[in-house]
Amino acid sequence: MFSLCVRDHFMIAHSFEGTVFGPAQNLHGATYVVDVEFRRRELDADGLVVDIGLASTALHGVLAALNYRNLDEVEEFSGRNTTTEFLARAIFERLEQCIGRGELGDAARALESMRVALHESHVAWAAYEGPIGDPRSSAER
Amino acid sequence: MFSLCVRDHFMIAHSFEGTVFGPAQNLHGATYVVDVEFRRRELDADGLVVDIGLASTALHGVLAALNYRNLDEVEEFSGRNTTTEFLARAIFERLEQCIGRGELGDAARALESMRVALHESHVAWAAYEGPIGDPRSSAER
Amino acid sequence: MFSLCVRDHFMIAHSFEGTVFGPAQNLHGATYVVDVEFRRRELDADGLVVDIGLASTALHGVLAALNYRNLDEVEEFSGRNTTTEFLARAIFERLEQCIGRGELGDAARALESMRVALHESHVAWAAYEGPIGDPRSSAER
Amino acid sequence: MFSLCVRDHFMIAHSFEGTVFGPAQNLHGATYVVDVEFRRRELDADGLVVDIGLASTALHGVLAALNYRNLDEVEEFSGRNTTTEFLARAIFERLEQCIGRGELGDAARALESMRVALHESHVAWAAYEGPIGDPRSSAER
Amino acid sequence: MFSLCVRDHFMIAHSFEGTVFGPAQNLHGATYVVDVEFRRRELDADGLVVDIGLASTALHGVLAALNYRNLDEVEEFSGRNTTTEFLARAIFERLEQCIGRGELGDAARALESMRVALHESHVAWAAYEGPIGDPRSSAER
Amino acid sequence: MFSLCVRDHFMIAHSFEGTVFGPAQNLHGATYVVDVEFRRRELDADGLVVDIGLASTALHGVLAALNYRNLDEVEEFSGRNTTTEFLARAIFERLEQCIGRGELGDAARALESMRVALHESHVAWAAYEGPIGDPRSSAER
Repeated sequence: MFSLCVRDHFMIAHSFEGTVFGPAQNLHGATYVVDVEFRRRELDADGLVVDIGLASTALHGVLAALNYRNLDEVEEFSGRNTTTEFLARAIFERLEQCIGRGELGDAARALESMRVALHESHVAWAAYEGPIGDPRSSAER
Repeated sequence: MFSLCVRDHFMIAHSFEGTVFGPAQNLHGATYVVDVEFRRRELDADGLVVDIGLASTALHGVLAALNYRNLDEVEEFSGRNTTTEFLARAIFERLEQCIGRGELGDAARALESMRVALHESHVAWAAYEGPIGDPRSSAER
Repeated sequence: MFSLCVRDHFMIAHSFEGTVFGPAQNLHGATYVVDVEFRRRELDADGLVVDIGLASTALHGVLAALNYRNLDEVEEFSGRNTTTEFLARAIFERLEQCIGRGELGDAARALESMRVALHESHVAWAAYEGPIGDPRSSAER
Repeated sequence: MFSLCVRDHFMIAHSFEGTVFGPAQNLHGATYVVDVEFRRRELDADGLVVDIGLASTALHGVLAALNYRNLDEVEEFSGRNTTTEFLARAIFERLEQCIGRGELGDAARALESMRVALHESHVAWAAYEGPIGDPRSSAER
Repeated sequence: MFSLCVRDHFMIAHSFEGTVFGPAQNLHGATYVVDVEFRRRELDADGLVVDIGLASTALHGVLAALNYRNLDEVEEFSGRNTTTEFLARAIFERLEQCIGRGELGDAARALESMRVALHESHVAWAAYEGPIGDPRSSAER
Repeated sequence: MFSLCVRDHFMIAHSFEGTVFGPAQNLHGATYVVDVEFRRRELDADGLVVDIGLASTALHGVLAALNYRNLDEVEEFSGRNTTTEFLARAIFERLEQCIGRGELGDAARALESMRVALHESHVAWAAYEGPIGDPRSSAER
C-alpha cells in the first residue's frame, strides 16, 4: 500500500457543551495542524499516489472554509461539539467530495482510503480514517 | 475509525542481558516520550473518542509508577530485558487495566484498540498495538 | 551562558482590529505552544539554572489564567491586539513577577534574562526576550 | 503487533517527466528523511523486534547506495519517475533483500511487514508498506 | 527584543568543489526548510513585528526564484560553493532587498535584524544572522 | 554571523543529590538529543563554517565516551550533579579541546563561539554557550 501525506493548518474559535469538557465549555480556540494521508494499492501512470499540487490546493480550500471562524456559528455544525475527532471526520468528508468532483484529478478516483489527523498541541492529536466512497460516507456517518 | 492520541514521558535506568546488546549491557538509561493512541469506530454521545483529561491522567499515573526508577530493580520485570518494544506492551497492558477499572470513564469501554509508541531518541522508536480486552491480553501475551 | 527551557501550551479565542489583519479580524482562535528559556551566567549550588519543577509550575499557572478564554474579554488586554508577539511579552512580564515573588525559588533571583516563544502553527512563531528586572519592565514597555 | 522504527536520510538530485510535475520537470533535488518501521507479532528471545544496530546499518547501507547521486543517471530507475512514493518502495525492496540475505540477523526472518516513509519537507511525505517476502515483491510489483 | 518567524521550503540540485566535500562533489540535491526570524525592539502600531502575510509572501517569492533549480547553473552563484551556510546569507540578502523596496510594508523598515536558518536534514542546519541595512550588506559581505 | 549545527544523542543513567531534585534523587536515566551550533563571522575558503563530517565525528566521539554509562561512576563528575545544564558545559569543554587539537580541521580554529543544547524530553532542554578559547574555559568555569 502506498501513501502520500500533505500538511496544512487552520485557526478557529469554538466552545463545547457538556460537563465532561470542564473549562473547555468556555469560548476558546485552537490551531489545528492537519495531516491528510491518501492511500492506494498501485501508483498511477506518472508514479504518483495523487498529484501533490492538486491535493494541497484541495486541502487548503477545505481548510479556508473553516479558517478564522467561530465554529459555534457554522450552521452545518449546529448542535454538535466540534471536537478534534469530529472535525477530522468533517474534513475527511469534504475531501471525499473534492475527490468525487474530480478536483484531485482523474487518477485520484483510484484512491482507496484516507486518514485525516488534526494536531491540536504538542501533546494531543485526533484522527479519522476510512475507505473513500464508502456508502456510509454520505448517509449514516 | 477514530483515534485520539496523548503524549507524556518518563525517565529510567536499566541494563540489558545478551551479547546482541553490546554496550547497552551496561547500566544506562533513557527518556521515553510516550504516545498513546485510543481507537473506536464511532464517537460517544459527547463527540469524543475518550475524555482527554481522564486519558492523560491515566497515562501519567501509569508512567509515574516507572518514572525515575532503575527498571533492573522492578520485580515485575525480573528476568526480562526492558527493551523499548517490551515496555510499550507493558504500558499497553497497564492502560488496558485502567480502562477495565473504569478510570477512563464509562464511555471508554467502547474503545476497540490502542497503540503505545515509545520514542527513545530522534532516530528510534518502538510500539505495541492491539485490540483492547483481547483474551490474549491477560494470558498468552 | 546557561539556559534551561520548559514547554507548555494554552488555547484561546480572540480577534484583531485593523485592516492589516484581513480575515483574522474575525473571532477565531489559536493553540500556543510556549517555550520559556531562563538564562544565567553561572549555575546555582545544585548545578541548576532554575528548579525545573518550580519553573514548570509557574509557567503552567501563568498559562492557566489565559487558557480556555476569549482574550477579547480579558480586561487587561482591552484596546490591544493580542498578537502572538504581544502575548509573548505579556507572559514574559507575568513570569518576571513570579520570579520577583520568589515562586521559582531563591536561587532564581540570579536569573539574568528570559526568552518566551509562542508557536502558533508549524510555520509561524513569535518571541519576546529581555533582561529580567529591567526597570523598563514595569514602566515604558 | 510490535514495531521498531529507525530513521536516517539521503540527499539526491533528479527530474521528472510529465506535465503533471510542472517546474519539478527541471533538474532539482531533495533531502529524504527516511523512517523504516519493522513489524512482527511476537518479540524474539532477547525481547526485540529486530537488532536495532543491524537494522540501522542495513538502512544506512541501502541509503548510501543512493546518497549524493543524480537519480536520473541510476540505471535501475531508467525510464521511471523517482517520485517519493516510488523511492519508498525501492527502499522497501532493497531492505527486504537485506533481510533475505540475513543481514538483519536470523531473528529478523520472523519480521512480518515493513513500512518505509520518506519525508521530503516539513509539509509532505510518502510511504510504502506491505508484507515481507510476499511473492509479489520480486515479480509484479 | 521581539521576534517573528515564518517557515517555508525549497528543493534544489547542486554539487560542490573541493576534496573536503567528499561524495558531495557529485551532483546531488537537498530540501531546505527555511526559518526566517525578523527582529525589532518595539512593536508597530498594530502590535506586530511585521505583517506575517507580507513576510510569508516575500519569503515564498525569494525561495521560488531558487526552487526546482540546479544551483550549479545559477549565474549569480557561479564559482561559489552553494553550501547551506552560503545559501542562508544569499536568502538574507534577498530578503533585505525586499524590505528595502517596501515589500514587507512601511512598518518593516523598523526591523533591526534577521536570522535565516536552513534545515537540510533532521540532523543538520545552518544559519546567517545580522543587522538589516548594515553597510557591509551590499559591499564587503 | 554564520552558524552550523549538527545533532546526535546519548543515553545514560545517573542520580542527583539534594532535596530540590525530589524523585530524581533515585537512580534513573535520560536520552539526551544534543545540538551543537558552531559560529564564526566569515566563512572559510570552501564556503563553510566547519567541515560537517569532522564536526559530526568529533561530536560522536565526545558522546561515545559518555554513552551507555552510569554517570555516577564517572570519576571526572565525582561530587557533581550531572544536570542537563552541567552536561551541556561538559560537552562544550570537550569539543573545545577537540578544536584545539585540530580534530575539526585547521579552518575550525577560526570558530568564535559554540552553543551546546541537550534535549531531555519533548518539554525540556538546557544549553551552554560561550566563546571558544576564552581563558575562563580552562580555569574558573
